[in-house]
Amino acid sequence: VDFKVTVLGSGAALPTQKRNATAQFVECVGRSILIDCAEGTQYRLRELGIKIQKIQHILISHLHGDHYFGLVGLISTMHLLGRDKGLTIYGPTLLEKIIKLQLEAGGNQLAFDITFIPIDGNSNKLIFEDAKIEIHTFPLKHRIPTNGYLIKEKKKELHLNPEALQKDQIPKAYFNLLKRGVDPVLDSGQKINHKKYTLPASPARSYAFCSDTKKNLDLIPMLSNVDLLYHEATFKEQHKDRAKATYHSTAKQAAEIAKAAEVKKLLLGHFSARYPNEETHLKEAKSIFEEVLIAEDSQTYMI
Amino acid sequence: VDFKVTVLGSGAALPTQKRNATAQFVECVGRSILIDCAEGTQYRLRELGIKIQKIQHILISHLHGDHYFGLVGLISTMHLLGRDKGLTIYGPTLLEKIIKLQLEAGGNQLAFDITFIPIDGNSNKLIFEDAKIEIHTFPLKHRIPTNGYLIKEKKKELHLNPEALQKDQIPKAYFNLLKRGVDPVLDSGQKINHKKYTLPASPARSYAFCSDTKKNLDLIPMLSNVDLLYHEATFKEQHKDRAKATYHSTAKQAAEIAKAAEVKKLLLGHFSARYPNEETHLKEAKSIFEEVLIAEDSQTYMI
Repeated sequence: VDFKVTVLGSGAALPTQKRNATAQFVECVGRSILIDCAEGTQYRLRELGIKIQKIQHILISHLHGDHYFGLVGLISTMHLLGRDKGLTIYGPTLLEKIIKLQLEAGGNQLAFDITFIPIDGNSNKLIFEDAKIEIHTFPLKHRIPTNGYLIKEKKKELHLNPEALQKDQIPKAYFNLLKRGVDPVLDSGQKINHKKYTLPASPARSYAFCSDTKKNLDLIPMLSNVDLLYHEATFKEQHKDRAKATYHSTAKQAAEIAKAAEVKKLLLGHFSARYPNEETHLKEAKSIFEEVLIAEDSQTYMI
Repeated sequence: VDFKVTVLGSGAALPTQKRNATAQFVECVGRSILIDCAEGTQYRLRELGIKIQKIQHILISHLHGDHYFGLVGLISTMHLLGRDKGLTIYGPTLLEKIIKLQLEAGGNQLAFDITFIPIDGNSNKLIFEDAKIEIHTFPLKHRIPTNGYLIKEKKKELHLNPEALQKDQIPKAYFNLLKRGVDPVLDSGQKINHKKYTLPASPARSYAFCSDTKKNLDLIPMLSNVDLLYHEATFKEQHKDRAKATYHSTAKQAAEIAKAAEVKKLLLGHFSARYPNEETHLKEAKSIFEEVLIAEDSQTYMI
């Protein structure tokens, strides 16, 4: 079952023809999650044929406009298109006030419920879980409180080994216990070892989102071994002083984090509009960490 | 000198591929005015090569999102691009609070001043004038307080009649008085009649904006003889009950207003997303008033 990220906007605060500001659509084993929601995100979703009503969770990193100015419009369009299914929005405390003030000013009552979960970029926390996935938040280091997010599959069940099961005539009633790694006692009184009848579980995949932030070594434990890390790379090394002053990262710094956290793949984004292209970002990141990609608007990345 | 309107969005609340929600850019004898500012308006301005920094006045009709959700993003982009020139925004009182709350949440101090002029759709009022133009507001009839706007050139000076002036050897010192319609007394003590030395002034052009509103006969005096009337035409006659219930107009009702006000030309817009095209709107309007156009996104209309 798919776990993938579609980049809706890979630019920084100033949108360009090529890169809109930040938004990403994540599909994780049937769950639909929007991360950040710059102005125009609803148009990009429409262009890509992504049905907005299937979005269940919206994660907002922080209250710089290039990360959420499209949220109230998206909510309005969900309403106009007849949504009745609830929506959960995770983000800074003030977000609820901002959205509600605008909805109230319009005098329209939404036909669906929004649950706002306040997250103010100050601690690691599990914010959602169901049978299949978990969503965690963790603090980034930016000019205002900013949340990183980690979406991961839960640890999966072991695969059954059909040959071994058949050979020893293990009854089906025990299969679920075996898949969960339990050693069941058969009717005969015999205790069997699950390892004999199972194969290793598929790995649980994970995706981490870090935008906007200065280089922050505190993130490494949380990012450790993720399959895909999206990390902002607003600047090239040439402008690393500017990165420091504005609490952003260079591409090389993002790669240093990826390397230290031993992630499988690094996706760079949030590029400043000052650069005509990102060849230098890529080169500088690759000098540190080989498995790196430049995020492009409307591209989908499999995890 | 030009007086023209560029339609940035001609659709209703639900944006479509073909029609974005409401925004218009008006150039009036060198003054740059934005009317309404739906989400994505800044992208449309960029596509059309309209420099956002030259916008001096922004007129907001009301606080339904399809008329102003792009305003805060436009302001942010003006800031990021280094604006230092002041900006005046006319609109409902609550707009100032909505915009300021979002700017403050982002923690950025704007490098230019915004003057908010509260207008709450309750009376006819002159809201701006300079040497060349006037901007008036007038109340529309919608579900929430909504402002119409009238932009017009000031009454122009008379043209001089060079032949008559030369024939009677009228000194140049009196030309400005004559242009203003004054009858000056010459050094000789003779009083001259300005009509003898002037030709009629060029007509002062005018543009009126009415979105969103139910059919409202009270508008007629204000709209009387305007060169171009933009009037919403959300619905066809088939859905006139829906128009009434939602405080909108049909194309035919818009044409009835245009006819009664004896405007020169009618521009219809704010079309509901339910219609695949606007042929019926046009036909129904033309049955009442011949000089009617269907607004199209990115089109410019000369006044």
